[in-house]
Amino acid sequence: MSAEKPSIGFVGLGLMGFGMATNLVKSGYVVKGFDVWGPTLDRFKAAGGQTASSPGDAASGNLYCVCMVATAAQAQAAIFDHENAIAKALPKGATLILCSTIPAVTAQSFRDQLIAIGRDDVYFIDAPVSGGAKRAAEGTLSIMAGASDAALEKGKFLLAEMADTHKLYLVPGGIGAGSNMKMVHQVLAAIHILAASEVMGLAARLGLNAKEAGEALTSSEAWGFMHENRYPRMLVEDYYPGASAITIILKDVGIVTAAARLHNFPTPLCSVAEQVYLSALPLGFGGDDDASAVRLYYPDPISKAEPKASLDPATNAAALKIVVDLLTNIHLVAAAEAVSFARYLKVDMPLFYDVVSAAAGGSTMFKLRGAEMMAGLKESASKRTVNDAARDLAAAVQAARDVNCPLHLGNAALNLLYLAKKQGFGDKADAHVLRVYEDEK
Amino acid sequence: MSAEKPSIGFVGLGLMGFGMATNLVKSGYVVKGFDVWGPTLDRFKAAGGQTASSPGDAASGNLYCVCMVATAAQAQAAIFDHENAIAKALPKGATLILCSTIPAVTAQSFRDQLIAIGRDDVYFIDAPVSGGAKRAAEGTLSIMAGASDAALEKGKFLLAEMADTHKLYLVPGGIGAGSNMKMVHQVLAAIHILAASEVMGLAARLGLNAKEAGEALTSSEAWGFMHENRYPRMLVEDYYPGASAITIILKDVGIVTAAARLHNFPTPLCSVAEQVYLSALPLGFGGDDDASAVRLYYPDPISKAEPKASLDPATNAAALKIVVDLLTNIHLVAAAEAVSFARYLKVDMPLFYDVVSAAAGGSTMFKLRGAEMMAGLKESASKRTVNDAARDLAAAVQAARDVNCPLHLGNAALNLLYLAKKQGFGDKADAHVLRVYEDEK
Repeated sequence: MSAEKPSIGFVGLGLMGFGMATNLVKSGYVVKGFDVWGPTLDRFKAAGGQTASSPGDAASGNLYCVCMVATAAQAQAAIFDHENAIAKALPKGATLILCSTIPAVTAQSFRDQLIAIGRDDVYFIDAPVSGGAKRAAEGTLSIMAGASDAALEKGKFLLAEMADTHKLYLVPGGIGAGSNMKMVHQVLAAIHILAASEVMGLAARLGLNAKEAGEALTSSEAWGFMHENRYPRMLVEDYYPGASAITIILKDVGIVTAAARLHNFPTPLCSVAEQVYLSALPLGFGGDDDASAVRLYYPDPISKAEPKASLDPATNAAALKIVVDLLTNIHLVAAAEAVSFARYLKVDMPLFYDVVSAAAGGSTMFKLRGAEMMAGLKESASKRTVNDAARDLAAAVQAARDVNCPLHLGNAALNLLYLAKKQGFGDKADAHVLRVYEDEK
Repeated sequence: MSAEKPSIGFVGLGLMGFGMATNLVKSGYVVKGFDVWGPTLDRFKAAGGQTASSPGDAASGNLYCVCMVATAAQAQAAIFDHENAIAKALPKGATLILCSTIPAVTAQSFRDQLIAIGRDDVYFIDAPVSGGAKRAAEGTLSIMAGASDAALEKGKFLLAEMADTHKLYLVPGGIGAGSNMKMVHQVLAAIHILAASEVMGLAARLGLNAKEAGEALTSSEAWGFMHENRYPRMLVEDYYPGASAITIILKDVGIVTAAARLHNFPTPLCSVAEQVYLSALPLGFGGDDDASAVRLYYPDPISKAEPKASLDPATNAAALKIVVDLLTNIHLVAAAEAVSFARYLKVDMPLFYDVVSAAAGGSTMFKLRGAEMMAGLKESASKRTVNDAARDLAAAVQAARDVNCPLHLGNAALNLLYLAKKQGFGDKADAHVLRVYEDEK
């Protein structure tokens, strides 16, 4: 349909939005973009885009509009409250795709506000994304879209332009379902991003060669997308400008913990991660790439850490085992936190599994133990019990303490394993740490 | 017995030891003191003490010797490993009182080492103290002494000189029992010290007048010794030299969490406090008074916080309720953590209650809810349920998040309340949060 490609309005040309919008330009769409930051508009023009003077100006005359601002408050302003807002300017029967990560209740309130102002003709799609700036620019994002069948039918081609062929998820449940799926994905993302810093900081404190430690972790059962993606930036201190700022994951984890409070649901690891991200703000790290959180664990460049451990093969192997055990067991408990919360929220579990496994929240522990948790812990391929996991993690916690390294997530995960033991699951397969998060039968 | 007062050897003239030793001098004892820091010896001489050139020199010729060094490693060195060590120099049948805060297993190893080197003639007393430098100098410390009956009989008069009349506790159970009692006391101390900073930091972020907030907290059910004792120092930033350095409470909480790992016992709040204290080290705060941890929550002087809330009476009252709810509920969960661990370790519970209530770990929540926990939760005078506590604390957590204030302990406590709800205790009296820490029946 190259000749008949519709023109697109695009509001929010930040790190993600710019890549998404220019990718549409490359694919042959006429894209009219708006951003509050003027220089971005110049860059967008240079990349072949058209520029708009307001959110409404971007939407005006376009039967398709994408909104990719950073926060729920910005989305509220751009769609409804701006003096030249999207909802007022969209032509009749237009499709509005909101890609921002926001609470499900906010997405639902946008649907209700559209109805309240007489714009129930708009096909509204709640479609948060995952994958980072690079995949945004390539049009290979993961997208979790919830909406009416009619709206999904209208918008699907455009979602497909922005998503990887195998990573466009149409989430049952209507408006809010996409946001809920993204939120439970972000349980893993928020924990794993900090865990990547925690484990690399400990590696440096233990005197491991940072690159060697990073490689050992990615080739072990401690593998996780976030660690593999972030640690190379830690090696070269590539924090400015960040691929994803600490303030972004802080916003996302805030959506998780606020929803958890609404449901009185425990999210101890997410809460720990949130407090540590908050602690980075007064240090001036908020705008830096989230990989820079490693500085909270090891203040100096980790690539310049004195490689004490690596001087002796046995010491080196023991230290590598410690960091592998640390990250593996944080990922294990993170899987329990995400799976339990997703089940509680009645998220479509097979879809959740597919989304996470193919997106930034993926880890070996999630793929293996997460699957066992979703299957009701009926059987396990794990040779490790909760007791084993606690023993290995306790050794890592002790090693960190010996070198004065804070281990926020490692300690929180260990205490959850101890709580699982208290509840009688010590001799069970390690995935049974899930039980701590569940209602007593 | 003024004319016949025995002479005393005293090893370790730090913040606590100096006060204790000079108090003995004032009471008419000849005290021969040793410290590794030369200038301290000059000060001790000026205060009427005699000075020694080594630990052994202090002990030599004295039938009584007090050791008040900072760490277990220093005690090992002073008593056994120094080339002129206490254990080699003590006269036959001498009494050795070790007042350092150390693990119970270390105290027991000292007893065993005395036997191994043929010094089972020494009357050894494991006698950690609590109360701070001021009470040390006044001779009104809390002392928790465990030893053989014969040793306690020998040393009691000297312990009584250093302790308050009503605060000398002879703990049943022999060597290690005193250290265990001190350790479970430090569960409360470690949490309460950080909680004092957390609540005052939040108060500043909420725009409360710091002095008014401090006073409101001390006159509410949020009262705790540590908060009452620390917040005045926060008002004037009196952190140098500290009355008790962050490194000291970090050492003590490390004894708690190491013992907890040994027993696979969950101590989530202590672990959180420990990680936050560790985070203070790279910022250069380690040697500062522990009240200075408020800077981790509010970087500027809290007395200079913009008093936004206090401009409007209703806003001010709401903000005061938030900080009271925060500290009250942290103290509630801290009581559960301390009582459960003490019970697990088979600590004498009535004695534990008396020790804490009269010492630095005391709080209104411990006195009221801690007593109910110790009585097996059979009845409660509390009008609040676990659900109520979670609701109040969630409001504080949300308020903190709204102003970007980390709330390490508040979030950890909230998640424990949510876990108690998951286990079916939501409608029970708030002291039932204890159940989270206990083996499933």
